[in-house]
Formats: sequence, C-alpha cells, structure tokens
Amino acid sequence: MTERKPGKVWGARFAKATDPRAEAFTAAIDIDRRLYKHDIAGSIAHARMLARQGIIPAADAEAIVRGLEEIRQEIDAGRFVFRRELEDVHMNIEAALRQKIGEAADRLHTARSRNDQIATDLRLYLKEAIGDVLGAVRRLQGALVGLAGANREVIMPGYTHFQRAQPVLLAHHLLAYFEMLDRDAGRFRDCLSRADELPLGAGALAGVSYPIDREFVARELGFARIAQNSIDAVSDRDWAVEFQAAAAAAMMHLSRLCEELIIWSSAEFAFIQLDDAFAGGSSIMPQKRNPDVAELARAKSGRVYGNLIGILTLLKGLPLAYGLDLQEDKAGLFDTVDTLLATLDVLAAMLPSLRVNAERMGAAAAESYTLATDLADYLTQRGLPFRQAYEAVGRLVRYAEEQGKALGQLSLEEYRRFSPLFEEDVFGRLDVRAAVEARDVPGGTSPRRVMAALKRARRRLEGQAS
Amino acid sequence: MTERKPGKVWGARFAKATDPRAEAFTAAIDIDRRLYKHDIAGSIAHARMLARQGIIPAADAEAIVRGLEEIRQEIDAGRFVFRRELEDVHMNIEAALRQKIGEAADRLHTARSRNDQIATDLRLYLKEAIGDVLGAVRRLQGALVGLAGANREVIMPGYTHFQRAQPVLLAHHLLAYFEMLDRDAGRFRDCLSRADELPLGAGALAGVSYPIDREFVARELGFARIAQNSIDAVSDRDWAVEFQAAAAAAMMHLSRLCEELIIWSSAEFAFIQLDDAFAGGSSIMPQKRNPDVAELARAKSGRVYGNLIGILTLLKGLPLAYGLDLQEDKAGLFDTVDTLLATLDVLAAMLPSLRVNAERMGAAAAESYTLATDLADYLTQRGLPFRQAYEAVGRLVRYAEEQGKALGQLSLEEYRRFSPLFEEDVFGRLDVRAAVEARDVPGGTSPRRVMAALKRARRRLEGQAS
Amino acid sequence: MTERKPGKVWGARFAKATDPRAEAFTAAIDIDRRLYKHDIAGSIAHARMLARQGIIPAADAEAIVRGLEEIRQEIDAGRFVFRRELEDVHMNIEAALRQKIGEAADRLHTARSRNDQIATDLRLYLKEAIGDVLGAVRRLQGALVGLAGANREVIMPGYTHFQRAQPVLLAHHLLAYFEMLDRDAGRFRDCLSRADELPLGAGALAGVSYPIDREFVARELGFARIAQNSIDAVSDRDWAVEFQAAAAAAMMHLSRLCEELIIWSSAEFAFIQLDDAFAGGSSIMPQKRNPDVAELARAKSGRVYGNLIGILTLLKGLPLAYGLDLQEDKAGLFDTVDTLLATLDVLAAMLPSLRVNAERMGAAAAESYTLATDLADYLTQRGLPFRQAYEAVGRLVRYAEEQGKALGQLSLEEYRRFSPLFEEDVFGRLDVRAAVEARDVPGGTSPRRVMAALKRARRRLEGQAS
Amino acid sequence: MTERKPGKVWGARFAKATDPRAEAFTAAIDIDRRLYKHDIAGSIAHARMLARQGIIPAADAEAIVRGLEEIRQEIDAGRFVFRRELEDVHMNIEAALRQKIGEAADRLHTARSRNDQIATDLRLYLKEAIGDVLGAVRRLQGALVGLAGANREVIMPGYTHFQRAQPVLLAHHLLAYFEMLDRDAGRFRDCLSRADELPLGAGALAGVSYPIDREFVARELGFARIAQNSIDAVSDRDWAVEFQAAAAAAMMHLSRLCEELIIWSSAEFAFIQLDDAFAGGSSIMPQKRNPDVAELARAKSGRVYGNLIGILTLLKGLPLAYGLDLQEDKAGLFDTVDTLLATLDVLAAMLPSLRVNAERMGAAAAESYTLATDLADYLTQRGLPFRQAYEAVGRLVRYAEEQGKALGQLSLEEYRRFSPLFEEDVFGRLDVRAAVEARDVPGGTSPRRVMAALKRARRRLEGQAS
Repeated sequence: MTERKPGKVWGARFAKATDPRAEAFTAAIDIDRRLYKHDIAGSIAHARMLARQGIIPAADAEAIVRGLEEIRQEIDAGRFVFRRELEDVHMNIEAALRQKIGEAADRLHTARSRNDQIATDLRLYLKEAIGDVLGAVRRLQGALVGLAGANREVIMPGYTHFQRAQPVLLAHHLLAYFEMLDRDAGRFRDCLSRADELPLGAGALAGVSYPIDREFVARELGFARIAQNSIDAVSDRDWAVEFQAAAAAAMMHLSRLCEELIIWSSAEFAFIQLDDAFAGGSSIMPQKRNPDVAELARAKSGRVYGNLIGILTLLKGLPLAYGLDLQEDKAGLFDTVDTLLATLDVLAAMLPSLRVNAERMGAAAAESYTLATDLADYLTQRGLPFRQAYEAVGRLVRYAEEQGKALGQLSLEEYRRFSPLFEEDVFGRLDVRAAVEARDVPGGTSPRRVMAALKRARRRLEGQAS
Repeated sequence: MTERKPGKVWGARFAKATDPRAEAFTAAIDIDRRLYKHDIAGSIAHARMLARQGIIPAADAEAIVRGLEEIRQEIDAGRFVFRRELEDVHMNIEAALRQKIGEAADRLHTARSRNDQIATDLRLYLKEAIGDVLGAVRRLQGALVGLAGANREVIMPGYTHFQRAQPVLLAHHLLAYFEMLDRDAGRFRDCLSRADELPLGAGALAGVSYPIDREFVARELGFARIAQNSIDAVSDRDWAVEFQAAAAAAMMHLSRLCEELIIWSSAEFAFIQLDDAFAGGSSIMPQKRNPDVAELARAKSGRVYGNLIGILTLLKGLPLAYGLDLQEDKAGLFDTVDTLLATLDVLAAMLPSLRVNAERMGAAAAESYTLATDLADYLTQRGLPFRQAYEAVGRLVRYAEEQGKALGQLSLEEYRRFSPLFEEDVFGRLDVRAAVEARDVPGGTSPRRVMAALKRARRRLEGQAS
Repeated sequence: MTERKPGKVWGARFAKATDPRAEAFTAAIDIDRRLYKHDIAGSIAHARMLARQGIIPAADAEAIVRGLEEIRQEIDAGRFVFRRELEDVHMNIEAALRQKIGEAADRLHTARSRNDQIATDLRLYLKEAIGDVLGAVRRLQGALVGLAGANREVIMPGYTHFQRAQPVLLAHHLLAYFEMLDRDAGRFRDCLSRADELPLGAGALAGVSYPIDREFVARELGFARIAQNSIDAVSDRDWAVEFQAAAAAAMMHLSRLCEELIIWSSAEFAFIQLDDAFAGGSSIMPQKRNPDVAELARAKSGRVYGNLIGILTLLKGLPLAYGLDLQEDKAGLFDTVDTLLATLDVLAAMLPSLRVNAERMGAAAAESYTLATDLADYLTQRGLPFRQAYEAVGRLVRYAEEQGKALGQLSLEEYRRFSPLFEEDVFGRLDVRAAVEARDVPGGTSPRRVMAALKRARRRLEGQAS
Repeated sequence: MTERKPGKVWGARFAKATDPRAEAFTAAIDIDRRLYKHDIAGSIAHARMLARQGIIPAADAEAIVRGLEEIRQEIDAGRFVFRRELEDVHMNIEAALRQKIGEAADRLHTARSRNDQIATDLRLYLKEAIGDVLGAVRRLQGALVGLAGANREVIMPGYTHFQRAQPVLLAHHLLAYFEMLDRDAGRFRDCLSRADELPLGAGALAGVSYPIDREFVARELGFARIAQNSIDAVSDRDWAVEFQAAAAAAMMHLSRLCEELIIWSSAEFAFIQLDDAFAGGSSIMPQKRNPDVAELARAKSGRVYGNLIGILTLLKGLPLAYGLDLQEDKAGLFDTVDTLLATLDVLAAMLPSLRVNAERMGAAAAESYTLATDLADYLTQRGLPFRQAYEAVGRLVRYAEEQGKALGQLSLEEYRRFSPLFEEDVFGRLDVRAAVEARDVPGGTSPRRVMAALKRARRRLEGQAS
C-alpha cells in the first residue's frame, strides 16, 4: 500500500503546492459539503456496479460501501471534519475512506471523474429539492383553498388598474393564486422529468474505457434514464437554469400575493388583519403591526431573480465541456431552493391566521360605481348595441359623480335621461350579490362556479397527495 | 344609429381629452399592430359565438365577420392606416369596422373586455411563434446532424477547462448541441401546452353576465382548453415568462456554440474555416475574415436575458388583476421571438458552409498528453487501484514534460520507472483512434456509439417532421 | 479613378458575396442610422485634422466636409436612402460621399477604423443624451417642487411597512423624490465626465501610423480629453454600462413614485385624483379612471433593468479588443435613453395636474395611533428611559385598541394606569400638527425645515438652469 | 428598574408571541451580525451626542459607551452569543447592554429608530468596504503594471473579432486593463462620495422631537455631511445599487481578463503558462494544468450581476418609507463585497506568477497577414487614396493566401501586380517591430508611447498610495 499524505490527488504531477490564496478562492467545500448524502449514494451505486461488472473486486466494493456508510453516519452526527485543502466534498470523502479502509478506497474512482460525479450529485440533490418544493407548493395551495373555503360568502371589489372594477368573491380572487401555483408545480415537474437522467459514466467528458453498466447505476439511484451524450452530460446545467426560472416565476407569484396582503392590511384598506404571531413591531412606534413576513417574502423575489441571472451569465459563452466556471452553479441554486421553500412554508403557515374583514370588503365592493358594467349589460340585454350602452352608462356615471350620488340614489327619471330603455327593474341590478351571481360562466365569479372550482381544487390536492 | 366621431371609446365619461404627452406615452399601437391577425381571428370566433348563443343577431355577426375579413386583407396589403389616438390594435380595428358596417360593429364588444381580448391575442401569437421556433430548432439540429455526418471520422481534442483533455469525435461534440437543442424544444413544447388555454370569457376580470360558450370559442381558435379562473386569466403572464426563460436557455446554448465557432476559426486553433459568404471583413485590415455572425449571435444572448428580466421585473409585486403595466409585456416578447428565430436560422444556414480542418483537429488531439488517462486505465486494467495508477501516470507525465517528450517518445524502460506493470503493449494504447474507440459505453465517444447516436438523432428529426 | 460599384468595402478580398441571411442578421443600419449626425460630425473633424496634418490634400478635405454636410441635410430632410447591403451608417455615408465627390472620398477613412469611429459616434450620442436626461430630471424635480410648494400645509400619514407611522408634510414626502432625482443627476454627470474622452485615433486597436493630432479632434468635437490606450478605446463600453445602471436606478425611483401615485389614487386611499387628461378609461367599465401613465412608467423599469443586464451579459467574458458582439450595444442603449426621457417627461407633465385631497390625507394622519411615538417621547422628556416609555405606551395603545378608542378619547386616569408621569398637558401632544412641528431637526418634517428645504431645492434648480 | 425578560422590544403591545416560522423567516441576525462594529460605533456616537445635548444624563452615556465597548470586545473575541429571538444585531446588542449596565441602557434608543440606525450601520460598512476595494483595485493595477514592465519588449498579435489583426505590445494590451480598473476605481469613489452622508436623526421616517445635533454625530463617525430628507434617509438604498453596479462593471472587466488568461494558457495559444501554485489538476487526467482561478473568477461575474438585479428588483415599486423589504439588501451586498475583494486579490496574487512565452507571441504576431494594414498605409503614404490602397492590398492578400505564401515570400513583381506604387522598400515594412513602432500616436502601441503610459500608471499608483 502506497503511503500518501492527505492532499490534492493531483499533487503528484505538480512541482509546487497550491498557493493558499488560490486554494481559498477555489475551495468548494464550504458550499458543496451539503451534497455529502448524494455524493455517498452515488459512490455506493458506482462501487456496486464496478464490482458487478468485474471491474473491481467484490470485497473491495463491500469495504467501500461499508466505509462510505460509516462516513455518512459521521457526517450526519457532526463528527466529520471537512478540510479545505482537500478542495471539495468528493475528495474529502475519498480521503476519509482511504483512512478508513486503506487501498480498496483507491479503486473507487475507477471509471468516473469528478465531472460526471458532481453532475450526478447535483441532479440527485435537485430531484429531492423539487420533491420538497412540490410538497410546499401543495401546502400553500391547501392554505389558499382553506382560506377561500372559510370565506366563501365574502364579496370584495375586484380591481383593475388598482381601481375598483367589479365585485368578485374573495374565494375567486384567492383561487387565482391557486392556478398560478398549479402552473408553478407543472413547471417544477417538467424540470424534474427533463433533469431525471444519470450523467455518471460520462467520465471527464468522453465516456470511459471500462465495461460499465450505466443502466444499473441509474436504477440504483432512481434515475429515469441515462444521459445520451457524455460531453453534454458533464457540461449541461440546463436543469439549474430551468429550476431557477421556475422558481423565479413562483417567487413572482408570491410577490404578487404578498403585495396584496400588505395592501389589504393597511389602515386604508383594512380588508384583513394579521395575527400578532405573524406581525412585526417597531422599535420606536408602539402602535405598529407590520406585515414583516409578506414584505420580506416580496423582497426575496429579487434574490431568486438574481440567482437566475447568475447562472445564465455564468453559462453565457462557455465552451464545452466542463470548466471550473461550473463550480459556481451551486451557491445560487442552494440559495434559491432554501429561499423558495422557506417562503412557501411561511406563507402557508401565515394564511390560516389572517382575519378577513368581510364587512369592509363588502362595503367597498358596493362603492365606486362598480356596477356600471352591469348597467351597460342591462341595456345591451334590452337590445342596445354594447358600445352604445357603454356610452350611455358612461354619461350616466359622469352625471352621478357630478351630483355626488351613488347609482342607487338616482331616480328612474334620471336614468331615462341617458337611455329610454331603463325601466324600474334596473334597480334590481344595483346589487353586489346579483352582480356576482350574474357572472355565471365557466371561470367566472358566480358562487356556483367558485364552489365548483373550490371542489376541483380540493380534489386536485387530494389527488396529488395520494 | 348614433353619430360618433372616431376617438377613445371611453371618451363619453371624461370631461377632457387625453393630454398628447400621455397619449404618446401610453399608445400601444406601434407595438401591438403586429397582432392584427390574431385579434381579428379572436373577434371572428367571438362574434360567431355571440350569434350562435343568441346574444347578437346572426345578421350582425355575419356583417362583423365579413367586415373583419376585409380589414385583415387591407392590413395584409398595407392599405390600412393605424391611428395612435385610437390607442391600440383593438380599437383601431373596431373603429374601422364601424366605418365599414355601421351599428352592427357596436355589438362586437359585447361580453368581452380588452383585458381578455389582448390575453387571447397574445396566446394565439405565442402559439404560432412557438411553432416557428420549434421548426427553427429542428432545422438547426438538422444542420448539426448534417455537419456531424459529413465529418464522422474526424477526431478532435475534447476540452475541459479549455485544456485538451481526451480525444473525441467531432461528431460527438456536435451532437452535444443536438441534445441541448432537444431540451430547448422540450421546454418550448411544455410552455406551449401550459399556455394553450383560452382567456376569452374572463371579461374585465370577473367573467361576463351573458350566456357565452367559451368551449366553442376555444375550439374555433384551436385552444386545448379554457382558462379556469377569470381573474387569473386576465392577469397571468406566465406564458411570457416561461417562453422567455426557455428562449434565454436556448440563446445560452447558441452562445456556447458560437463561442466555439469563433475560437475554432482563430488562427491559433484553425479547426474550421468560415465560408466567405458568412464572414465579415474589416474597414481597414484587408486580411480579416471575421466570424461576424457567430459574434453577433453570441451577443444577442444578452438581449434575450434582458427581456426575461424585463418581464420578471414588470410582474414583481403587481396586485391583481389587469393593470396597464401588462401592456409592457409585448415589446420584449416580440423582440425575443424575432431574435431567437433569426439566430437559429442564420446558424442553421451557416453551419453547412463551414470547412473542417480534420488534419489540424486530429494532430491537436494527439498532442498535450491527451492519452494520459488511457495510460492510467491501462495500469488499472492490470490490477493497480485507479488512484495509484493515476499517481504513477502523473509522475510519468511530469517526467515526460521535463524531458520535452511526447508519451510515444519514451522508452519502455522509462515507462517502467513509474510502474512495473507497463509492458510493450502500452504503445498500442498511445493511439488517438484507439482511445476514442475504447470509450465504448452508452453516451461515449466511440465511433460505434456516435454512429448510433447520429441515427437516433436523424430518426428523431424525421419523427418530428412528419 | 477606380471604378467601383457600391457594395461592401472589404469585398475585394472575398471570393463570394455575403449570404443574404448573414447580411440581414448582421446589418446594423436599421439601428445605427440614428447616429448619422454624430458620424458626420466625427468625420468632418477627422478630415479637417487629416488636412491640417498634411495627411490628405486640403482640397480633398474641403470636398469631404462639403459633401458630408450635404449628406447630413439630405438625411435631415428624409431624402437619403439607407441601404442594408452597405452594412452600417458609416459605409452608407462613405458610399454616398463617393457618389457625390468622387475619389477624394476614398481618403476619408485614412488613419481610422470603424472601430474607433463607432466608439466616437456613440460617445457623442451619449453626451448629448445625458444632456437631455439632465434637463428632463430637472423638469421633473421642478414639478415635484411645484406640487410640494402648492401643498405646503398638507399633512399626510408617513408610512413604514405600508402602515401609518407618523404624520409628515406631503411636501416633505415629495421632496424625498427630489433627493433621489438629485442623486440620479449626479450619477449621470459622473458618467458623462468619465465618458468624455475621444477614442478616435485608436484605429482598429493599435493606434495608427500617421502623424495625427488627436487633441485637435477632441477639441473640435468637444471632448474633454483623449482616450489613453488604443486597445481599451475600441473595446470599452463602460459608459454604456454606467449610463444604463444610472438609468436603472432612476427608473427604480420613478417606479416607487408611480407606485405611490397609483395607490394614492385608489378609492381606498383617495389622497389624489388624476386629471382626466392623464387618466385612462376602460373598454367595458364606464366608471373607470385608470392611472395608465403611472402604471406604464412603473412597468418600464423592467425594460431598463433588462437593457442593463443585456449590456452586462454581452460584455461578460469578451476577449479584447473589438468584436462584433459590441454592435449589440446600441439597441438597448437607445431604448433606455428613449424610455427614460419619455418617462421623466410624461411624469413632469402629469404631476402639476394632480388634485390633492388635503382633507383626506389629514384625517388619515390623525388615525391609527400615529401619535404613539409622541407619547413615548412625552414620557422620555419627563425622565423615563425611552425603552420603558416605549413599553408603557405599547401597553396603552393595546388597551386603547381593545376599547376601540382613539388616543384622544382616553381619560387622564386611563393614561395614568400606564404611567404616573402623564399629566393633563399630554392632550396637547395629541395633535397632528404639533407632532409635525416637533420634528424640528435638520432633515425633519417640521414646516420650518421643509420650507427651508423647498427653498434650497428651488435654488438648486435655478443654479443648474443658469 | 423594570424587570424585563429578554425578548422582542415590541412584545408589550402584542397579545401573542411570534410564530417560530415567522421568527425564523424574518430573523436578520445571521446576516447582520457582521455589522456589529459599525452598529456599536454608531451607538457610541449617538449616546455621546444625547448627553452633550442634555437629552440623557452624562453618566448614563458613559455607562453606555463603556458597556458597548465591552460588548465589542466580547464579539471580537468570539465570546458573544447572538440570539435569533432578538431579531437583529441592534436588539442583540441593546439587550446585552441592559444585562451589563441596567436601566441606563434603556436610554440609548432615545431619538432614533432602527430605520435610521441600520441605514447608518450600512453606510459605515460600505465606506469601509469601498476603501478595501480601492486598495484591492490598486494592487491588481500594480500587478498589471508589474507584468507589463517585466515584459516590455514582448510583441503579440492584437486581435479584433478574435482574429489576429495588428501586432501590439503585450504591455500595451495589459495596460488596457489598467484603464478599465481606473474607471472602476473612479466609480467606487463616486459612489463613496455620494453615500457619504449620515442618516441618523431621521428617526423612523419623520425626524425626531429631541434637540439632537446631527452634525456632531456626522463628524464623530466621519461622514462628510448629513442626509437632507428624513423620509429619503431611511428608504434610500441607492448606495447599494450604485456599489453593486460598479462592482458588476469591475467583475465584467475581470471576466474579460480571465477569459484571455484562459485562452492564452490553452495548448493552441500557449502564450502563457500558469504556475503550478495557481493551477488546478484533474481527478482522472494526470496531464491537466487547469486555469481554475481564472475560470472561477470569470464565473463569479454572474453572482455579482445577480446581486445587482436582486437589489434593483427588491426596490422596484416600493412605496416610501422603510419596509422590511429593505432587510433583504444585506446578503447580496455582503456577497458582492466579498466576491469582488477575493477576486481582485487572487488575480493580483496570480499575475506575477505567469510565465510569458514571448517567442510564441512574437511568432504569432508575424503570421496571418497582420501587416496588411501597414501595406495599405504604405500605399496611402505614396499618394493612393486609402480606400483604393485598402482594396489593392485586399486583392494582394487574397492572392498570397491562394498561393499559400506569407507577405514576405512574395516577390516585388508580384507586389506590383496589385499596385505600381510598391517599391523595394516595401519589404522594410514587413516587420512586426516596425509595425509596432509606426503606431506612434498618443494612446498607440509604439514602445515609446507604451513606456510613457507605464510611467504614468506607476505615478498614478504611487499618488494613490500616498
């Protein structure tokens, strides 16, 4: 057995040790240690395959597997010391393995390279992370459905251009976010299925000259298939780009939700009240109850957008195949996963605690001429072409506004000044609930449609959970 | 029939005309006129549905359809004058329709809003654009396959860290890009299927109070399904984000390809020569043959990344539902579609004209100790644990380098100084072609595997074309 | 005189014409034609210098200058036809010059290259653009000062976390934007002074082998100095990055202002009312008065952020010196300049038309316990350590909230339950105006300080205008 | 003295404790603990001022100062335990101070808010960071100057479009980066001087109601001036945007330098060789010597671009004044500072170790018809208009290329086929050194000019160091 003092594997050929400044700059271990479970799982599958194919002795493979499992337990238990001069998680583990089992450890890196190894580790990590994200998305969808269900009668003003537009059900509004999250989940699933291929076996970039069984390794590690081109396999980071893009879209949705929660909890809107358990206070203004969680969640969209730009920039104009540029893929990816999960989870925790001010919402829905469209529809249904109905009501609203009156405060005579088609029954249309019920088309806000949508949403969540 | 002079539809209620500076700032028509075909198609389907459901008279619908088709022909023929004071493509067309068919035109906007109308137009546009992009991706894939097939014997150095690493087939290298483009196509298809739903019927945001048939309109316009939540339907721009993210990834791939083409056509590499038809010249250096196309294509990744950030920024923190912020979705989207299509197309045109310098590539593949890994594998296959084999060869390479000799120039005796396992047959491994053939694993660079990959690629292209 | 048919200058060496697809892809003329004035100015200065230095005959220089001036007039008048096959603005003008003055035109390109020529054109353009931007910033600052001055008595709630925090003067709030714009102006000026150097004379990248006088050209064109390194001079695009970064910061400020205008014009806030001349209407909701301008302005931050990322991406990892990648610097730069100018101008036009609802603002400032900090300060001023005062008032506010009472509705006895330091005079502190006046520190919101700030702001604007 | 158990300061008013998920999500302490020195310095200056103005007793101020200094020492020594339930660095320190000195600590937060406090801390941090960055920029400039000085005779091919264009001095090429870094330093200095104002005294947002002396605090803390508007002071993060934009430009420059170092150390270029102390090895290819440092440095541009987008996104559309969104400003800022400093430093360390292959560079400079421009200039200097000279040489180069000959291998007769102006002395122009010397204009590559530039650069570095 060769004596070897711990240090860089490639030290043999170099005349000099690495400069400590370069070592500190290029060290990956502070970031990639997080991958130890995936690295060990990959190495175990690889060692088993090597033995199975007769490339290394079975006894060595057993020693390797046993040793790696011990190392995993040590790391789990916090008893493992990672060393920066060993560069990365792979070399730290390989060095520890040699300490533990001796020469057999020297056979582990047969027929692979760190290039395909790290790609494998990262895909294993990502698959797990996407599983976590899908769970967290579902929980937030559940919280939205729960809040919608608990407030199914509540009517609020629907807004366009941040102006009150038409009355809608709060539940309908909340379910809009359910739809967004559903698309997010779809994007994460698509990312997962595209990323679900095993790079191992690509070697440094060209494949390896041993009779390996990549399909076996793929099965062991739970990959759907193997990567089809070795050069692509080690230089591809599409899965990181695609995941971060999906995460950016999801954070964008959450930033919209949080913007609304912040606005709704303002004194001027007062549509909701935050529970003290989810509100922040001020260091000098004793009266404050701040929507800290929603603000921070909104802000974190920036971080995730930034990570997306980071990986896209990194990859721009990079020649094939692997280069150390790719080492920079990790910090941003981990940060995005952590940020997204934390944000989804804290919002799912907070939503059920919101108190909805139904009265205030309902009153707001009835003000500001939100029923003007219904009046135009009234005239249209009596035969006036819509554009003319719209104009007549436009003049009517202007008149009412000048008089300082609500639509219900005008007399029939006043109505008739703008169109002779108005009859006594027009006043029946001036009701917020009637307006909501009238929008009884698929996707519309009528209670019947929204209840059906809620049911569909619940079924979808159950379907995914099973 | 009401007299009405052309102008903003909502003028009736306002006491003042729009300030010309505000009008110029908010005018959409210079950008959205491009959607006229989709807008007219949407209006025709809508009008037919309105008549079918008895919401407007059948004769009016017929007049509308006829009028719209005339308008389309006029725009096609360049005989239509768009007017900025009419704000956008919708109002320009509606105004022209009224001029043409009179009062019946006033019924067209029944049971819809510009909010669901523009969302419908844009999705129709995007579906068409994605079809175009998929075709262009396929053509570039075809060009790669063609170039690979025409150079199937050519060996080049595979690079990691931009250093020669191991010999590979040029065809294998080119097929790495085939894989990238294949994932791109997958992302565009996923985007398409997620975007393939009809917003029309969402009205301003709440649905409409007419007995419309959204499924009929969806079928008429070729949508797979209808949007399920009216508030989401008018405020959702996920499809733009997702498309732009997929485009950013694709442009990233193209930037990598172009980087390589630029590098390969340098004097130092001289791996390829650009055809004069695709090279640029200098205004003062008569000798120059510049890779203009590849440089510009590489640069255009920035533009597409920028458009992605543009739409993500726009949507950050936007409360529901529609707001005029969303009008800004178009310029970036159109620019990305145009840029991506132009880049894919010009590269597909250029690739076949490249002249490959096989000799130079082959010579480079044999230099720089690119067979060192094969020597380590040689020792491993003779029983030495890989890590020890690697070290022995590391020392051997360092020795050779110091001697200024290639691996083939060392004697067996010199080899044996580093390991007694070296035998005469080691010299048989010092062959670039042998090294390539040895990597005969799935995804590897051996000619057998690469030819199979080429065949698979061709089949895939044919499958998609049919 | 050599016969030459119009076409690419570098055609002589190439065996083939450029492929039309490559020509279309690389054509710059649709974008860079906008630089014709700067290009001609640069050429005139260059020609004069060449003659002055005896490099070309004086008569030729005169012919060139005359010819170029005619061309400028033709372009001004729209009588010039740009041709795509001539690539760019430089070659279009040079070709026209040759048509016009014959062989003398062939001497114009002596001792320069398109590389230093375009860098010169763009810097001339940028200097002009920054001048325009500084004027527009000043106009918007003027509008803010005008609005502040016209509403100098108005008190509104200051917000933190979008919750009412403490009363402030509206004028004070508006002047916060004045400060932001002032920093923006500073950044543009710094960008200008850093960009203010002449690249011409750098040639293709190495300098030229003629006895040129760069200082003369710099003076002619109004540059502060000449670029010090020819390689840097042709490959530097820092000025574009710096300008776009400054523009991104400015658009960020405007997005914050617009967010507030949008929120303030909501029914719930009703702090301001948009004038009809700056409001948008709805195609189906006759009652709407939408803050279209502010929404669009807010959204356009995305476009400018995107352009910044575009230029940064383009430049990432680009080897020296000039490459055609740099041609892509223009579209984004022009778009940012146009967007920024239009946004600044339309907001400056809109602000004076806003109607401020002083009553509503004042009432809001008095609600929501906004004077709690003043109560804590009251206790502190009576000797209680601040943190204890803060806690006492915290309990007091909680009590008041539970009682559903405002601070002014509690009795002295109730006050004293929370601290014996409360005396009758505490009620004197429960006044919004008193609270505003109390913050009489430099930078604070007291009327005295704000009036001084207004005065300073006006002086600053006058100083800049002179 | 009031009993108070450690916990949130605003706990008094809230009915419930913070939910642990919200607490974990909003906790700042893991990030902002890094500001403890700046926070303590700010608090000390604040306490002194409070006593000086008679706002708190002098004895209390002394106790506070002493206590804070002890706490600083404890943190310095790693003996301080930060607690997440205390939210942030401010509250951790205030709580520890109370433990240490009792009630006097309760007076520290008089007349300030965390809003102006954190803004002050961050500006103090940034000022220090910019100082560090300027030092690191200077060191890298020094390394460039050193490398240039050590290789002042070396000629290399200058490139445009990555094609050999004209010979230049390596020193000239390196000094192009000196210029870039000089502009970077200018931007950082401008950022510093714009950021150099004290926010403290702005309170929560409105100023404070105590007779504070902001100028005194500014002097104590070394700020050039005080912020002029309290609302702006607490909501402004321009300095973070500006710093990150300057950092993005700097990292862009470094990415260009690194791209060149990577390319130059390829086998094909072999212009430089990395020292083993700064090269990386491969885990399976014993022959590799990878430019790890340069690759990673190039990649890190993505991270810094991302952080810039992060802060811009965060600020987009944020209403005034402070909101918890702003808490997200820190992670990205710290990461950018760390990344930039580490990258500047490691490159400054690496540059001196590069071995330049002068022979290879010189040979490359002489190939590829790099003297064609000189031939055109030769003809021009003999009276031929440049454009015609250019064309003649274009045809000459094409002929030489077809013959497979270098320019020096053609006979005079062959030259004369393209222009009768060619004389025997043309061969004197076919010399790389002559070509370099000919570019003797300000900013040009002639040795005389480059030596002068080197001298200027050294002087500038010395000037800055003093």
